[in-house]
Amino acid sequence: MSGPFDDIRNLIRSMPEADAEAAAAVAERDATLTKPAGSLGRLEDLAAWCAAWQGKAPPSFDRPLVCVFAGSHGVTKKGVSAFPDAVNRQMLDNFAAGGAAINQLCSAYGLGFKVFDLALDMPTADITEGPALDERACVATMAFGMEAVAAGTDCLGLGEMGIGNTTIAAALYAALFGGDPAHWVGRGTGVDGEGLSRKVAAVEAALACHAGHLSDPLEVLRSLGGREIAAMVGAILAARLQRVPVVIDGYVSTAAAAILHALDPSALDHCVAGHLSAEGAHAEVLERLGLKPLVSLGLRLGEGSGAALAMSLIKGAVACHSGMATFAQAGVSVRSGA
Amino acid sequence: MSGPFDDIRNLIRSMPEADAEAAAAVAERDATLTKPAGSLGRLEDLAAWCAAWQGKAPPSFDRPLVCVFAGSHGVTKKGVSAFPDAVNRQMLDNFAAGGAAINQLCSAYGLGFKVFDLALDMPTADITEGPALDERACVATMAFGMEAVAAGTDCLGLGEMGIGNTTIAAALYAALFGGDPAHWVGRGTGVDGEGLSRKVAAVEAALACHAGHLSDPLEVLRSLGGREIAAMVGAILAARLQRVPVVIDGYVSTAAAAILHALDPSALDHCVAGHLSAEGAHAEVLERLGLKPLVSLGLRLGEGSGAALAMSLIKGAVACHSGMATFAQAGVSVRSGA
Repeated sequence: MSGPFDDIRNLIRSMPEADAEAAAAVAERDATLTKPAGSLGRLEDLAAWCAAWQGKAPPSFDRPLVCVFAGSHGVTKKGVSAFPDAVNRQMLDNFAAGGAAINQLCSAYGLGFKVFDLALDMPTADITEGPALDERACVATMAFGMEAVAAGTDCLGLGEMGIGNTTIAAALYAALFGGDPAHWVGRGTGVDGEGLSRKVAAVEAALACHAGHLSDPLEVLRSLGGREIAAMVGAILAARLQRVPVVIDGYVSTAAAAILHALDPSALDHCVAGHLSAEGAHAEVLERLGLKPLVSLGLRLGEGSGAALAMSLIKGAVACHSGMATFAQAGVSVRSGA
Repeated sequence: MSGPFDDIRNLIRSMPEADAEAAAAVAERDATLTKPAGSLGRLEDLAAWCAAWQGKAPPSFDRPLVCVFAGSHGVTKKGVSAFPDAVNRQMLDNFAAGGAAINQLCSAYGLGFKVFDLALDMPTADITEGPALDERACVATMAFGMEAVAAGTDCLGLGEMGIGNTTIAAALYAALFGGDPAHWVGRGTGVDGEGLSRKVAAVEAALACHAGHLSDPLEVLRSLGGREIAAMVGAILAARLQRVPVVIDGYVSTAAAAILHALDPSALDHCVAGHLSAEGAHAEVLERLGLKPLVSLGLRLGEGSGAALAMSLIKGAVACHSGMATFAQAGVSVRSGA
């Protein structure tokens, strides 16, 4: 018996590997650049990583894109957020008008920006009572996310917006990693103590509701949602197939990465973690996924804001690798005895 | 009896304080912006810090400038570097031709860039045998550094270049903070084990040579050098007087900050640490100075490279604060019950 999820599993089996030749070419050129070997630290790794996943050396950073996926969640009726559902649509308008934080960051760093409305006016089912999505809707949303990766993009940052979605993310982590549900629940946009208790209760109820259907990561995704997570799963996978390096954002975006990692740990090889979120459990999640965040500035906004900051660092890394003079070009002496 | 150093001490006594009104205006506006309170983490602090030290709200990031000071050091004859002295002039030419890492970063982030030749062809005295500079030359170099802060600059990044200057920095830290000289010595541009031993021996010899003259931070600076450190001391001080926030770079740049901190701990209130260097003792130095680095990417290049990366984050912070819509402007609902 086969279902829509099988298409996703087949795509994962067909994921391309890193281009070792491009990475080697970066290492070779790096050794000739006018700087002590290794002195650009992680910027050197980022240039090699970009090249390996773009499949070309030197790597480019000419068409970076931040995609923000917006979803709405039935679980908000359980009082899990400090903000009302109406904010979803209002923030989408704010993105369109250029008034959100991510608009300023993309403008400051020269990053393209797109926002996707994932049926905002039709919230997913309350996960404490039933599955967020059926299998077909889940796959359709992943496919929508796959389409978001515009042709020619050479670095993709992933962000999200959706009142209630730190509760969704916490439920996903609890399902994937186990442990006390409360361990994965944080304050999100800033709930008070009672709100936090309601979040914990909602995650516990969701796990109880779906017990027995949480061994397959795609079933976990379908059961606990939401649409923005499913779309980001699709986008990460599409980026891999299209040879686009990916920058993951914070606590919610990383949940999409965690689904893919559970399906195949190598599925995140083309991804870096943009930042460490202030949401308490993010550090543990990143460690479980083998991702080391590029910055740690206490952000907990979402919108791809941490990814955008990290992309400015990647922009610098690629600029150094591509633009620096070699020792020979600059007539700079190599090290003594070398 | 008064000497040239007294002019510096008088300037330190006349340092302006932060503009509390500008900082308060930033906090007030921040609370109205379309994001959960506090969700931009350290970016919010950076916007307030810029405003407080620029003395205006909102802060600007329209004329950021990276200044790189280049000096040469007599102590290199002790074999403390992996690179020959000739690299100083060659790298200056490379900066001018736009081929160095810092050129690429400044270009990627829209930062102004200036490089200053501090008598490169006339190395300071070998500090294992005598003082690097006399008092007049030391003050003249500080004054030169003060002139480097171009009028209208609204954020200043400080960098340096000088074969042998991680040995100078280690000697300065050992003199200021005490402890085993070896504790402060790292591999710099990449010396091997024997080179490292020569660095340790040079720092020990320098401290022995100047014992008894190391209680006054300005005497420490004069005795152990070098010119790029003295110029950065001047630049940090001038920036304070001209209301320009400063971003410090790595292990060598931070030595200039340490001299000022030893003279007056409040002298660094207008500074942030751009990054944590891979040079081992940098973390301890920053902690002693009360500075928390903005990024930690394993860089150990100097040139202001870490400062430039951090300035891209500050650019984003100022852009968010200045450009974001307010809840009222965007028609976004405030949090429930607020």
